[in-house]
Amino acid sequence: MPDASNITAPTRFIETKLEKYAYRRFGRGASLPLLCLQHFTGTLDNWDPAVADPLAQGREVILFESAGLGRSTGEVPDGVPAMAAHALAFMDALGLTLVDLLGYSLGGMVAQQIALDRPSVVRKMLLVGTAPEGGEDIMHMEKPELKKISDDPNLPGLQRLVKLFFTSSESSQAAGQAFVARLAERKQDREPISGPSVAKAQITAFRAWERVNGERFGKLRNIAQPCLVVNGVFDSMIPVRNSYMLTEHLPRAMLLVYPDAGHGSLFQFHDSFVKEAVLFLDSTTI
Amino acid sequence: MPDASNITAPTRFIETKLEKYAYRRFGRGASLPLLCLQHFTGTLDNWDPAVADPLAQGREVILFESAGLGRSTGEVPDGVPAMAAHALAFMDALGLTLVDLLGYSLGGMVAQQIALDRPSVVRKMLLVGTAPEGGEDIMHMEKPELKKISDDPNLPGLQRLVKLFFTSSESSQAAGQAFVARLAERKQDREPISGPSVAKAQITAFRAWERVNGERFGKLRNIAQPCLVVNGVFDSMIPVRNSYMLTEHLPRAMLLVYPDAGHGSLFQFHDSFVKEAVLFLDSTTI
Repeated sequence: MPDASNITAPTRFIETKLEKYAYRRFGRGASLPLLCLQHFTGTLDNWDPAVADPLAQGREVILFESAGLGRSTGEVPDGVPAMAAHALAFMDALGLTLVDLLGYSLGGMVAQQIALDRPSVVRKMLLVGTAPEGGEDIMHMEKPELKKISDDPNLPGLQRLVKLFFTSSESSQAAGQAFVARLAERKQDREPISGPSVAKAQITAFRAWERVNGERFGKLRNIAQPCLVVNGVFDSMIPVRNSYMLTEHLPRAMLLVYPDAGHGSLFQFHDSFVKEAVLFLDSTTI
Repeated sequence: MPDASNITAPTRFIETKLEKYAYRRFGRGASLPLLCLQHFTGTLDNWDPAVADPLAQGREVILFESAGLGRSTGEVPDGVPAMAAHALAFMDALGLTLVDLLGYSLGGMVAQQIALDRPSVVRKMLLVGTAPEGGEDIMHMEKPELKKISDDPNLPGLQRLVKLFFTSSESSQAAGQAFVARLAERKQDREPISGPSVAKAQITAFRAWERVNGERFGKLRNIAQPCLVVNGVFDSMIPVRNSYMLTEHLPRAMLLVYPDAGHGSLFQFHDSFVKEAVLFLDSTTI
């Protein structure tokens, strides 16, 4: 499998009833395909090979570029339900009738929405650094601690990720530098970087997701799939209490919280995360 | 290893500078010995073979009967520090200079105290269904939901555990029945069951542990050992928020929360718990 890596896997394109989407698929194995849904402003190039590649050793990993991101056509929706509709159109066009989902941050919200809108296509979900509808303090980039990082003109884009996704400790920052070095390993066939209009639409979606609609967390009762909820204990973008809320209200959610880690806990503890993800995906008892 | 099981391992006794303690040790392997510290009123016979036995396949498992319990001599202390002193006297007498600790419920409090009082003897800790000093709603057996179970004259002792340690769901209750059936597999060389005076002293210790002494959770900063904090999301004896507090204040704690599980999450999800414990104990990155 020379291309079973997000460093080398070619970007592919598929026409659907909604848009033409960019995507990558690589790896193989006996397990269900793992469809990966990306974070705020992230593209296919933001999937850490240290997470995606080992997961692709036991299953096909499919990275999805939603509408208006990278080389996918269309507009970035300003709400999670429309994002879920794009993911479902993509699945339909590829003929994917049952998958596991890895939803990271914004992608975790889209994953929950997919499970609500069409439960039959989802077997299990990994919900990482994310929040339930009606959650708290979700991606408030205007908070001083986040704004000073995202507005810093001296920080190149990847270095912003090191500050935003990792804690200020020496070990977490070192893990952050290793993470962005891995992201930079892909040299060709890269996606365009997201601009301000992407951020604006996705922030609007976060504000809508934060609102309590009806009984708070009531919809979570309808998600019957086993879920593994993962976060860093010091996530400044989507605080860990949102992961507590998910775990306390999803009927079948196991929670895993990493120490000295922020929003990018899965990248900081990639070896552990991959082992935990495989244990969870292969388990028949959880 | 015919005796590498808590069903068959003989109870041993050791004289120390404080008391004569009952204990069991079984299993072997390359890993450090795992010293197991028991819950409220529990004896050596309350360690589930489905947890203890597979752990004994990679390390020696040592079950400790603290003072005044089972056939150990002395009085049950009414404070956690004195319980830690008993465990340390036991370790000294056995010549154990470095161990991993599995502290369950009250045992998890004793484990924290040991790590504070003599950090050099502890490598890693599994802290299950427990709370930090200054935690909340710790073992209030007078709460109506607990009192109606512990006062029910029609519930034999082991059936009380099924109600107290497991949730009311069908699958959790079934896991509870399987748990008590496993506990009953040991037929000979059993420990005497704890009486009311044991419960009274340990409840006094819980009340003391609940008090905030100085900066709340400040002592946890001094526990440098990697910890795996584990709980059931619906623990009615020591609610899961105490595990959140531990995770948020211990410098190196990973948190694992099980769905549809109560105080006995490690027994309900014994296969997963053992795998997670081994991953954690063997890990060099967490």
